[in-house]
Amino acid sequence: MRMYDLIMKKRNGDSLTREEIAFFIDGYVGGAIPDYQASALCMAIWFRGMSDDEIVALTDCMAHSGDTVDLSRFGELSVDKHSTGGVGDKTSLVITPIVASLGGKIAKMSGRGLGHTGGTVDKLESIPGMQVSMDTEAFLRQAEEIGVALISQTGNLTPADKKLYALRDVTATVDSIPLITSSIMSKKLAAGSKNIVLDVKVGSGAFMKTYADAKKLAQEMVSIGKSCGRNMAALLTDMDCPLGHAVGNSLEVQEAISVLKGDVKGDLYEVCVALATEMVVLFKGCMPADAREQVVDAVESGKALAKMREWVAAQGGDPECIDHPERFQKAAHILPVISDRDGYISHMNAEAVGSAAAILGAGRLKKEDAIDYSAGIILNKKTGDKVLRGDILAYLHTNDENSLKEAQERYRSATEFSAEPPADRTPVYEIIR
Amino acid sequence: MRMYDLIMKKRNGDSLTREEIAFFIDGYVGGAIPDYQASALCMAIWFRGMSDDEIVALTDCMAHSGDTVDLSRFGELSVDKHSTGGVGDKTSLVITPIVASLGGKIAKMSGRGLGHTGGTVDKLESIPGMQVSMDTEAFLRQAEEIGVALISQTGNLTPADKKLYALRDVTATVDSIPLITSSIMSKKLAAGSKNIVLDVKVGSGAFMKTYADAKKLAQEMVSIGKSCGRNMAALLTDMDCPLGHAVGNSLEVQEAISVLKGDVKGDLYEVCVALATEMVVLFKGCMPADAREQVVDAVESGKALAKMREWVAAQGGDPECIDHPERFQKAAHILPVISDRDGYISHMNAEAVGSAAAILGAGRLKKEDAIDYSAGIILNKKTGDKVLRGDILAYLHTNDENSLKEAQERYRSATEFSAEPPADRTPVYEIIR
Repeated sequence: MRMYDLIMKKRNGDSLTREEIAFFIDGYVGGAIPDYQASALCMAIWFRGMSDDEIVALTDCMAHSGDTVDLSRFGELSVDKHSTGGVGDKTSLVITPIVASLGGKIAKMSGRGLGHTGGTVDKLESIPGMQVSMDTEAFLRQAEEIGVALISQTGNLTPADKKLYALRDVTATVDSIPLITSSIMSKKLAAGSKNIVLDVKVGSGAFMKTYADAKKLAQEMVSIGKSCGRNMAALLTDMDCPLGHAVGNSLEVQEAISVLKGDVKGDLYEVCVALATEMVVLFKGCMPADAREQVVDAVESGKALAKMREWVAAQGGDPECIDHPERFQKAAHILPVISDRDGYISHMNAEAVGSAAAILGAGRLKKEDAIDYSAGIILNKKTGDKVLRGDILAYLHTNDENSLKEAQERYRSATEFSAEPPADRTPVYEIIR
Repeated sequence: MRMYDLIMKKRNGDSLTREEIAFFIDGYVGGAIPDYQASALCMAIWFRGMSDDEIVALTDCMAHSGDTVDLSRFGELSVDKHSTGGVGDKTSLVITPIVASLGGKIAKMSGRGLGHTGGTVDKLESIPGMQVSMDTEAFLRQAEEIGVALISQTGNLTPADKKLYALRDVTATVDSIPLITSSIMSKKLAAGSKNIVLDVKVGSGAFMKTYADAKKLAQEMVSIGKSCGRNMAALLTDMDCPLGHAVGNSLEVQEAISVLKGDVKGDLYEVCVALATEMVVLFKGCMPADAREQVVDAVESGKALAKMREWVAAQGGDPECIDHPERFQKAAHILPVISDRDGYISHMNAEAVGSAAAILGAGRLKKEDAIDYSAGIILNKKTGDKVLRGDILAYLHTNDENSLKEAQERYRSATEFSAEPPADRTPVYEIIR
């Protein structure tokens, strides 16, 4: 078999066999196939697409290109959620204790990632004392005992995806539905959960900017996951405006706690309830209405909040933080952004809000960068809100005073006004099962 | 400027500017742009094509990526011919002395190349004593004095093309009209001639298998050459059957001499006359009918043969070879291929005939391989000829007795028979000016 022939075949619009795809992935990870042939193949895939059989084979080969997590001890109860990423997306912090309190087993290894804020493990680390490193046996035991363990990724999961994604990132071949699908789903398969709920974000702050693309991706991922023996559901949710009111690591943790306390409703609450509901539907096999009732009750009864305390304590964190938010580190500088006009907020560029948070220190651009856990933004007004001149639009939090001016400008440029209120937004557009 | 953005732009179907193309070529030759980005761009070009403006810019940048040959001392008289390559193509050896005898200046550096037989410099080297290395000044002086100098390439001509072609060759991006055009035309521009005639072969032994593709390529190359200030013409010629009767280095030289002596007519003669005619049209500015008359006269009067003698002598070769073919090295083994049936030869796979010659030792697969100058094939019967059982189809020449069996099988498999004579072939299909 020759890589040249595989490139030619795909370029000409033919399908690759499972053996050919395995030859590519093995050869690429092993170093026998050079980057310049892999990038040519990715570009050919970008143009020609892939059949479902090809995507299943690619996903499967990538999932098995390195270590995999064995969650078989949890039987049908293991459950995972994946988000395609958005600004202010702290849903994992809310739904994890909800689902664990209802009997689901969430044993999750998570990457730190690059972006406007840190990833979920970075957010957890902003809780004083919280540890995100653990050996695999301790990790599984904790999930068994309390239903949840969330740690920083160990081992060598999906090296094929890591190598291929890095290549796609510099060769303009990221935005290909088959390649995105196989990238995300290979990681989910390697992570071991039987039940997987996907949160596919759509809008200005999301990777997928159009509804049609987001829906296509969601359908493809659900289909591929099912073909690989997992129970699947996907939600299409709004990311045309940051989710909730907090953007930044410890600010988002505090907002997540408020949701669990029942103090916060709105878009964040709705998305969390919808995601948790689908997770319960999958691992309990119950009807959506029944699942939703259980999820709402977990919040209202305080069961989910209690699970959060248990989780934080189990990973060495200070559970008192949950009732005493003043225990979280506070930023040295907090600057209000004041509105200079009257009107309704008609649109927010969520990505620009995220980059304002990054300027304040909430995210990292390179793997080595340090994160300022207390940095970020509290949105006081969001899309649809009425604003009067002099009102506070947001608070910028940072320890780097020099970043305030640029972040403020970025934030203002992200906010558009209109004389009339805009149409109501829908936090959850559609569920694909 | 970032290479990533260039790939994205082309991938999305937009045109690259001259500055962007220069950035790519400079960066790629200089090593700042890695192979994996260049291959992704080539694949995007394969799918999206390029505008004439883009091809002109790419050709121009590649032509100036290294040394160039300055033929300005010859004014309007410098003339060059390029063939896209075929089996038994010895036209350069025939038309060069014809055109030089009519006042054209052919100062040509030629690569050795890989293939079924050697390139033109290899063929020249099969003439006892003939030298194909010369310093640039001696090379130009010889062309000035006798109208012709043909040597092995020196200096660093079009390094961008060398590097990019090697990459395209392993990433399935060779067969792209814009990339072929810029590859060929950049070399022609760097080679310096004011007048360029292209011989675009079409058929089973050619790079372009279909007439439509060959014509598109010919038109593109003529258009790009004109845009770059050269006088251009292209011929579409038949390569569905080897050209002439000889395939192999010294065998082809001997056949070329026979054409110059007026002893050979047929397809080879027709193609040579047509090519030489277009060259004369370009550098003399005369009408085609007039040019053809001069070309035919150069052969019939012996002027072209005399120029051949002069040329061989000027480069240290033995001019007596021309009248005494027995001075050429002879192969140790000559095996006739006998027909086992009656009928007409309806079709020949020219590429398979070429590979039979390569098996006998006439070509090289790797740069380092030695060539057996005397090895090759003399075709006794060609497409359209009537054959009786027991007739000799061809003679296989080699110094490697072990190669005979495989070459004979390959040769037989390349020949198809029919009961009725096939339609007449046309050696020259079309001229694009």
